[in-house]
Amino acid sequence: MAEADFIARLRALATHPAARGLMDDAAVLGDLVLTHDMIVEGVHYLATDPPADVAWKLVAVNLSDLAAKGAEPVGVLLGYPLRDASWDAAFADGLTVALARFAVPLLGGDTVSAPVGASRMLGMTAIGRSADAPDRRGARAGDGLWLVGAIGDAAAGLAIARGERDGPDALLAAYRRPVPLLEEGRALAPHASAMADVSDGLLIDATRIAAASRLSVTIDLDAVPRSPALDAFAGDDRAARLAAATGGDDYALILAAPPHAAAAVVATGAIRIGGFVAGAGLTLFDRDGAVPLPDRLGWEHG
Amino acid sequence: MAEADFIARLRALATHPAARGLMDDAAVLGDLVLTHDMIVEGVHYLATDPPADVAWKLVAVNLSDLAAKGAEPVGVLLGYPLRDASWDAAFADGLTVALARFAVPLLGGDTVSAPVGASRMLGMTAIGRSADAPDRRGARAGDGLWLVGAIGDAAAGLAIARGERDGPDALLAAYRRPVPLLEEGRALAPHASAMADVSDGLLIDATRIAAASRLSVTIDLDAVPRSPALDAFAGDDRAARLAAATGGDDYALILAAPPHAAAAVVATGAIRIGGFVAGAGLTLFDRDGAVPLPDRLGWEHG
Repeated sequence: MAEADFIARLRALATHPAARGLMDDAAVLGDLVLTHDMIVEGVHYLATDPPADVAWKLVAVNLSDLAAKGAEPVGVLLGYPLRDASWDAAFADGLTVALARFAVPLLGGDTVSAPVGASRMLGMTAIGRSADAPDRRGARAGDGLWLVGAIGDAAAGLAIARGERDGPDALLAAYRRPVPLLEEGRALAPHASAMADVSDGLLIDATRIAAASRLSVTIDLDAVPRSPALDAFAGDDRAARLAAATGGDDYALILAAPPHAAAAVVATGAIRIGGFVAGAGLTLFDRDGAVPLPDRLGWEHG
Repeated sequence: MAEADFIARLRALATHPAARGLMDDAAVLGDLVLTHDMIVEGVHYLATDPPADVAWKLVAVNLSDLAAKGAEPVGVLLGYPLRDASWDAAFADGLTVALARFAVPLLGGDTVSAPVGASRMLGMTAIGRSADAPDRRGARAGDGLWLVGAIGDAAAGLAIARGERDGPDALLAAYRRPVPLLEEGRALAPHASAMADVSDGLLIDATRIAAASRLSVTIDLDAVPRSPALDAFAGDDRAARLAAATGGDDYALILAAPPHAAAAVVATGAIRIGGFVAGAGLTLFDRDGAVPLPDRLGWEHG
């Protein structure tokens, strides 16, 4: 409740149209797309995660916001608390690999001293350019809800990273080394009436598009694609599908697109998983009929 | 040493010309100026500092980097760890006041959960526009070293905030509510061959301009202006002048400017405190002759 108050206070400061009312993944200033994400030790990653993977994730979560706006990355700024030389060196290795992988230069930032034992809070700002950045608020009644990317693999990978279960490397990698869908985002942006990345969970992120667009969204849980690795790991029943759809950290893209854009959207590899209609809220169904909404649709702070 | 290694690693990633080799206060991409500063509880501010002042300072240190590039602010992105509702609310109050004072909109950012008891690490990215952003690397032999703003007041204010001594509100305010010299920066930029803000200490920041420009800098310690409040608080002897020149947190501007620009520079209120010549390093003097360099020229991480 206090957190909601704080965000409402920030929203009151976000009067510039580029801020999009803080309802979007990124600020859009002319053709510039600007996003800033923080990841916190013990919240967004485990203290035991390899530092190179943490660097990768910091880059990936920021670039995923650019992907959701159809943007080409221009560069990043890093906010980094120095704390431990060997961890820092391994982080630098991972940062080098991740920036090279996505061909993004480091443009600046800040390194600061951190108190001994302080939980690391790592910040990154990513800057991109997009000729036509879709807005989270732009879905229209009659649009389909489309998805490109994997859902649920990362949440399964988190359970493996936590040592709760053994599981395949592919799922662990989905959690530790998510891949922002930059190319897909650029291909989809011209056809999308709204687009966002799935960071906090498919159900909550789809609901946010609906709320920002003042619509209701319906999702066919069976239509949400699953990897063979996830089916083998978690099974395929309704509980497993709900867990995947609320797990978060997926960095898939979801979008609203009108029926006439279907062929272009399908060509990118996206799959139709639902649609938008007049109203409010989320409706779920599967082969067995209506699905009661779970208590938790995803992470409230991701 | 390990920190220097880490920064050298980052520098290797900063291959884009906009990064200016990470030698500058900000990245400069066309007419855009981009900076990201972090401030850390217990390092850049005291846990007992009022949250509204911490918000002010976060805004001010970022806008000061824009001032040093002669930029007009466009907006800011905030990276904020939520930890305590009453602190957060007071921070929001201060943020509202600071952004209104400098007429800067919030464009976006990220709020995250922080572990209980974690030291806050607050990030801000500021975006500005400047037609002609001076480079820290641009000083030329024969240029004067000019200063606009107060030196030493903030370090005295820190001693007061720490309870080490009683002192006037004006000095405490210089520490808690520094004012970025945006207007002066815009007026000076067309005449400056190099410019930077004084965040880590006058001596270290002037030496950084010299090093980035492959020159030597000479400073007349007696020419560095002092406020009457500082003279009354700390006295006026060499030790007091050295303390002021190494104290940091001033958010004054220093610049290199050629002799023919002197009249235009004076018109902004700047004062000549030294000059650049061929060579390397820092030379200090005062009315009594050469001044041995202090062990510490300022903060290595500010």
